Amino acid sequence: MPDVYLTRVEDFCAAHRLYNPELDDEENLEIYGKCANPQGHGHNYRLWVTIRGEADPRTGMLLELSRFSEIIRGVIVDRVDHRYLNEDVDFLEGVIPTAENLALAFWRELEHRLPAGRLHELRLEETGRNIAALKAD
Amino acid sequence: MPDVYLTRVEDFCAAHRLYNPELDDEENLEIYGKCANPQGHGHNYRLWVTIRGEADPRTGMLLELSRFSEIIRGVIVDRVDHRYLNEDVDFLEGVIPTAENLALAFWRELEHRLPAGRLHELRLEETGRNIAALKAD
Amino acid sequence: MPDVYLTRVEDFCAAHRLYNPELDDEENLEIYGKCANPQGHGHNYRLWVTIRGEADPRTGMLLELSRFSEIIRGVIVDRVDHRYLNEDVDFLEGVIPTAENLALAFWRELEHRLPAGRLHELRLEETGRNIAALKAD
Amino acid sequence: MPDVYLTRVEDFCAAHRLYNPELDDEENLEIYGKCANPQGHGHNYRLWVTIRGEADPRTGMLLELSRFSEIIRGVIVDRVDHRYLNEDVDFLEGVIPTAENLALAFWRELEHRLPAGRLHELRLEETGRNIAALKAD
Amino acid sequence: MPDVYLTRVEDFCAAHRLYNPELDDEENLEIYGKCANPQGHGHNYRLWVTIRGEADPRTGMLLELSRFSEIIRGVIVDRVDHRYLNEDVDFLEGVIPTAENLALAFWRELEHRLPAGRLHELRLEETGRNIAALKAD
Amino acid sequence: MPDVYLTRVEDFCAAHRLYNPELDDEENLEIYGKCANPQGHGHNYRLWVTIRGEADPRTGMLLELSRFSEIIRGVIVDRVDHRYLNEDVDFLEGVIPTAENLALAFWRELEHRLPAGRLHELRLEETGRNIAALKAD
Repeated sequence: MPDVYLTRVEDFCAAHRLYNPELDDEENLEIYGKCANPQGHGHNYRLWVTIRGEADPRTGMLLELSRFSEIIRGVIVDRVDHRYLNEDVDFLEGVIPTAENLALAFWRELEHRLPAGRLHELRLEETGRNIAALKAD
Repeated sequence: MPDVYLTRVEDFCAAHRLYNPELDDEENLEIYGKCANPQGHGHNYRLWVTIRGEADPRTGMLLELSRFSEIIRGVIVDRVDHRYLNEDVDFLEGVIPTAENLALAFWRELEHRLPAGRLHELRLEETGRNIAALKAD
Repeated sequence: MPDVYLTRVEDFCAAHRLYNPELDDEENLEIYGKCANPQGHGHNYRLWVTIRGEADPRTGMLLELSRFSEIIRGVIVDRVDHRYLNEDVDFLEGVIPTAENLALAFWRELEHRLPAGRLHELRLEETGRNIAALKAD
Repeated sequence: MPDVYLTRVEDFCAAHRLYNPELDDEENLEIYGKCANPQGHGHNYRLWVTIRGEADPRTGMLLELSRFSEIIRGVIVDRVDHRYLNEDVDFLEGVIPTAENLALAFWRELEHRLPAGRLHELRLEETGRNIAALKAD
Repeated sequence: MPDVYLTRVEDFCAAHRLYNPELDDEENLEIYGKCANPQGHGHNYRLWVTIRGEADPRTGMLLELSRFSEIIRGVIVDRVDHRYLNEDVDFLEGVIPTAENLALAFWRELEHRLPAGRLHELRLEETGRNIAALKAD
Repeated sequence: MPDVYLTRVEDFCAAHRLYNPELDDEENLEIYGKCANPQGHGHNYRLWVTIRGEADPRTGMLLELSRFSEIIRGVIVDRVDHRYLNEDVDFLEGVIPTAENLALAFWRELEHRLPAGRLHELRLEETGRNIAALKAD
């Protein structure tokens, strides 16, 4: 049986500010432009999580989709939805919430909550035009 | 010649918090739920502006689309993009930034910057599932 | 204060068959084509519900969006989602489940569960290319 | 029985150039900008056609959707798809192919090929951001 | 010349029920939830097929796109569109029609009807949130 | 630190004609069908560019997104937008502008204007149904 890839998509809405507290305001403005505005801005984030493996012959499924959704929501979405990512989220403490860093932090939270070796790709859309992703080797 | 309707769509990203400062925290939580979280959240807003009138026979246009886009960006988008709508925007001072109130405030800003009597509909998508609109009588 | 229009979008997945039991198979095939196939087919339906009215000055809202969502889900979505529309749904008994008839039946269910006089438009997408709608006078 | 609105969506790909041959090149450039480039450009157009009326009680339909699609394709899409709108299309002769003028020309072609009094709205998307429409009174 | 990847997207609408006839109703309900409802439900499926290879220098194409579309429609879409996937489709006999199993069955049908070694990825969207895929090694 | 993938999406509108001048009209018609129509047609093209690498620990970014956008627009979009791809674009001289050939030509233009070794994938949508891509080895 060849491997199958299963993707579940979840959304959340959050605020963030791109700002490195170790740099001064001028440097932050130069690096991040309007994304460094002091009071932040926000996005409708879309998160795609893909797992890989063999479907269970008895069920025809790699992971039941409502269970897959529950895991993503429990591990990620419920902790970041309607939050200010720079301050409200424990596992993002000290993280500059760029799309790249968020994708990396989400990957680290998810990889141990999914069946071992299954997490294949995580893709985070900040907007439909700006997308960060990680992939298993 | 029948009337033609012309719509231009623009996007912006902003943070907001639903919160009435005249009410206490408990009341705000009851009314707005997680939208009242203290540090706010945000959205990729999509703004649809529709004007109505007769196309100019010489140009075949109601309003040149790059000019239409410039007006919407100058009057609305550039003032709210990458901003915290509760505090950063002059024309939203004292406004609880619900989708309904934003649509209403945007309408008031736009109606005098477009050719007289032309503004027909303004539609604001907070997400693809939550949409507020105003229409001319 | 001008009227504001507020739209909430909900999805459901259902099966149906276009078939009038008072006609014979040949007539049904002629009228409905492959949509009359005996075992049915299905769609990811998307339902748009728009209400109209004045926003409450205290809250800035016409209807709180999570409450709006709950009403649509309670009155419509939970009763049709993952169902066979020709047989499983009480309020569709005797209804040929065309997009037109479904939109009409949904309107009748919803209009008395929303604040009086508020329901303005109901739009049902069977696919992104086939859409039925009803509007208040 | 209240009126029902039924919409069918069709796509086509075409080239055009915005240019009024009665004006000189400089005037055309001033009015149309890059849309006046001499060799033209093109779009994936999306056409939405909405009819209005009472559903037939025997069939539950206003117009069978594959028949609706055939009419739109026969009257409009097959004549403009993969064409240069400034020169290849008989019913666009002498028309500057702005979105507004195309919507108007399509309306005139369609209104007599659909059951009398049924055409309610025609909407033409040049891109997802630029949209022209006509509506019945 | 580097390899090029060419993707064609086709849609179909079908009904299915997730149910393993070797298990009893309670077990099916536990595994599949509402997807096991006795009369089934349905989806607007979207199928993405990607081939890989070198473009023909004479034509600049890997496979002419209308020919590519014809193959996918002939081999897959025309056999599943407007069908009940549990019973109406010969090549799905005995298959529990989960997204994973459908993707696997479609891959097996397609790989021998496309130029040898070309099939690179097959992706099946049950909804925009639930997606199964297979990839060549 | 694992590699991160960052994607930026840009749009342009252009006209083209599929036609090999070394073949006669009949052969071109046989190969390209309506895409060989003499006056051309056009598309709203969507271009996805993905780079790969480690995020800079100081900024949390692989490449600042507005800079990424500027590169893609400067190198590709501004040179093809609102143009006739068969004749107006220097780097496409002698190229039959199929999606495959355009993707290949865009890759060659971009790979030397992005930080060395970074370009991972380039994807060009001619329409939402017809997509060509290249990937790094």
